[in-house]
Amino acid sequence: MRERYYIEEIGRHVDREVTLEGWLAGKRSSGKILFLQLRDGTGFIQCVASRADVGDETFAAADELSIESSLRVTGTVHADARAPSGYELSVAGIEIVHAADEYPISRKEHGTAFLMDNRHLWIRSSRQFAILRIRAAVIVAARRYFDSRGYTLVDTPILTPNAVEGTTTLFETKYFDESAYLTQSGQLYNEATAMALGKVYCFGPALRAEKSKTRRHLIEFWQIEPEIAYADLEDIMDIQEELVAELIRHVLETRAPELAILERDTEALAKAAPPFPRLSYTEAVKRLNEAGHAFEWGEDFGAEDETVLSKLFETPILVHRYPRMVKPFYMEDDPDDESVTLSVDMLAPEGYGEIVGGGQRAMDAERLERRMREEGMPVDEYQWYLDLRRFGSVPHGGFGMGIERFVTWVCGLPHIRETIAFPRMLSRLRP
Amino acid sequence: MRERYYIEEIGRHVDREVTLEGWLAGKRSSGKILFLQLRDGTGFIQCVASRADVGDETFAAADELSIESSLRVTGTVHADARAPSGYELSVAGIEIVHAADEYPISRKEHGTAFLMDNRHLWIRSSRQFAILRIRAAVIVAARRYFDSRGYTLVDTPILTPNAVEGTTTLFETKYFDESAYLTQSGQLYNEATAMALGKVYCFGPALRAEKSKTRRHLIEFWQIEPEIAYADLEDIMDIQEELVAELIRHVLETRAPELAILERDTEALAKAAPPFPRLSYTEAVKRLNEAGHAFEWGEDFGAEDETVLSKLFETPILVHRYPRMVKPFYMEDDPDDESVTLSVDMLAPEGYGEIVGGGQRAMDAERLERRMREEGMPVDEYQWYLDLRRFGSVPHGGFGMGIERFVTWVCGLPHIRETIAFPRMLSRLRP
Repeated sequence: MRERYYIEEIGRHVDREVTLEGWLAGKRSSGKILFLQLRDGTGFIQCVASRADVGDETFAAADELSIESSLRVTGTVHADARAPSGYELSVAGIEIVHAADEYPISRKEHGTAFLMDNRHLWIRSSRQFAILRIRAAVIVAARRYFDSRGYTLVDTPILTPNAVEGTTTLFETKYFDESAYLTQSGQLYNEATAMALGKVYCFGPALRAEKSKTRRHLIEFWQIEPEIAYADLEDIMDIQEELVAELIRHVLETRAPELAILERDTEALAKAAPPFPRLSYTEAVKRLNEAGHAFEWGEDFGAEDETVLSKLFETPILVHRYPRMVKPFYMEDDPDDESVTLSVDMLAPEGYGEIVGGGQRAMDAERLERRMREEGMPVDEYQWYLDLRRFGSVPHGGFGMGIERFVTWVCGLPHIRETIAFPRMLSRLRP
Repeated sequence: MRERYYIEEIGRHVDREVTLEGWLAGKRSSGKILFLQLRDGTGFIQCVASRADVGDETFAAADELSIESSLRVTGTVHADARAPSGYELSVAGIEIVHAADEYPISRKEHGTAFLMDNRHLWIRSSRQFAILRIRAAVIVAARRYFDSRGYTLVDTPILTPNAVEGTTTLFETKYFDESAYLTQSGQLYNEATAMALGKVYCFGPALRAEKSKTRRHLIEFWQIEPEIAYADLEDIMDIQEELVAELIRHVLETRAPELAILERDTEALAKAAPPFPRLSYTEAVKRLNEAGHAFEWGEDFGAEDETVLSKLFETPILVHRYPRMVKPFYMEDDPDDESVTLSVDMLAPEGYGEIVGGGQRAMDAERLERRMREEGMPVDEYQWYLDLRRFGSVPHGGFGMGIERFVTWVCGLPHIRETIAFPRMLSRLRP
């Protein structure tokens, strides 16, 4: 394969001549010297071209280029402490690959709707570039966490006859002669595969037809969901904590330039180191009330409650043992207090709220079936799920981490919509 | 976190006492000695329990257990060259976690429909275990290939207003006030993100409502799709070859026990080393005809043609430059012969056929738009895609590798349906 040079790795080639292939992100000219901001998808670098070095014709052609024109720039790499990237290119030659039409996105303020309509172009700008690179780093690190600890990735179905968390928010499609629903979670299937493979995780899209327009919701989002056989609530909390700590560490170590582009307060992220406080739902309610926030035991935390609660801490917190009525049917009861479940959610600090939800799963077939009947679920459709408790039932548990919510927090964003390349929202199916 | 022991790593604990947590995969008894086949999702091990060591009560209870009962077995690890796993456990104690109901799957022959109805249990059997572990290894290695080479993972949408490859095989769903389709490929979006991030890949589910019942088709399958800016057909072929070679190497190195369970001919896999022959479509047609197989230039290869062709070679082959009429609108024309495109598919040997498809993409906005109009595509809907050619168009290309087809070949399976935990097929939406 031919050797390629990328801005991200340009520091390896100081004082050597390289050719970079990219796009024009910005430019200014003094008449004799042209400063070209080049981006190649891995970073940004300033390229300095003098009329004397590149010749009148090339100089003039480059000087006229629209933003986002594509070009190959050949030059010598110099270390330059004043440059944002730490390096600069002294240009020997410029090859224009394609002179762009006038670019619709400029430095001036654009409305969100306009930018979202042009999302396919907007992702080229430095902030979006930074967010998408951080997102990718989070996912790579999350997969590595599980891959390196003996978990088996098992992809769970997108099309399913089952409704995991209520039917009102399900997308439905015709599946030949019957109806199918788009998945909202791989968890139930994960429980089956954990019994076959011990420790598993799935990682895929989840789809919720929620008519809510909030800063925290996407119609289409990605979730990593581990499930572990022979695990209890304590194990699940340990794994959540270790995972999130590793992700933060990985982002801080590998995505410093991107965090800088976003002007993210990395001190706040660095503080999010374990151990994370573990408090029961009941204790959390008490803390809320002590902070002067009205909240009654038995309710589910809303976005506002989570914001208040998570602002009381500098690290993520693990809130465990939620009441039965606010958690799904499959949560195991707490043997010490049957009004609560062996559930645990993680709330991110700085007001970001829930990023992880999980717990220990019900182990007894009869009790689980009774609960499903009480909730009016189609028990026939779930016989396979009950089978997991009939043939070698074991204590087990797991959790789901929503990638976009996590990235919203890590990037310090006010809204979740920029954490995925092509967000799907209530009024947004395009591009 | 508490220390856990897994069969996969049991070799680290020879002559030490460990507790394994798993399920009973099989047993036989001599009256005084009980041979328990234990599985824990990472492997299988024989546990030898003598009546004298575990006591009458435990011995009797264990002797009565149904297959797939869950149990914790404590004992000392011994290296034993005769054991399939290389190790054996001398049992000191057995804790029964859950005595299973009589297990529906036995050693006798079951029909495929019965096994598929019990897929949630069938995946516990050794062959299915082996296939799913190999699948996971393939995916981990494929991601690592791209992650370690500076590609950015960008998840592309599942719900889309666009139809990439014809509307007849699309699943449709109501998206609030309009219609959305389930994705069949992330490629078009990949082209946009490649212009923002240089080298990208997506990895997600693809859904095709195809009414075909073949050994090679699933309704729901997973695809890894890289896309590279500033890349031409040669680059794409190089990457395909390097990727597939690395995947084969990784499976041979890390999944030898699983390949042994499947009785896979690993010699055949080891022979699949690069360089892979590269032949044009035109040359491939000639080879087919020379082999006495009727085929006319201009047709698309069917499953049978691919089988004949791929049996002529011991390695995968790269077939490039297919005729315009058998390839999608976005393929770049060959500048040397406009009747063919800069496309390339990889066919696996041993008769398995296509596992990768891709090529170089059309770079010119006007020509691309003309082609879209010729094919009757809704050009308005694709303005964003044309924009990629208006603002810094570059030579670029990529490909898609279908995970299940690849795993079918690697595992040497007669049918694709066992390569995913819960297959979705024409008459199969459950469990």
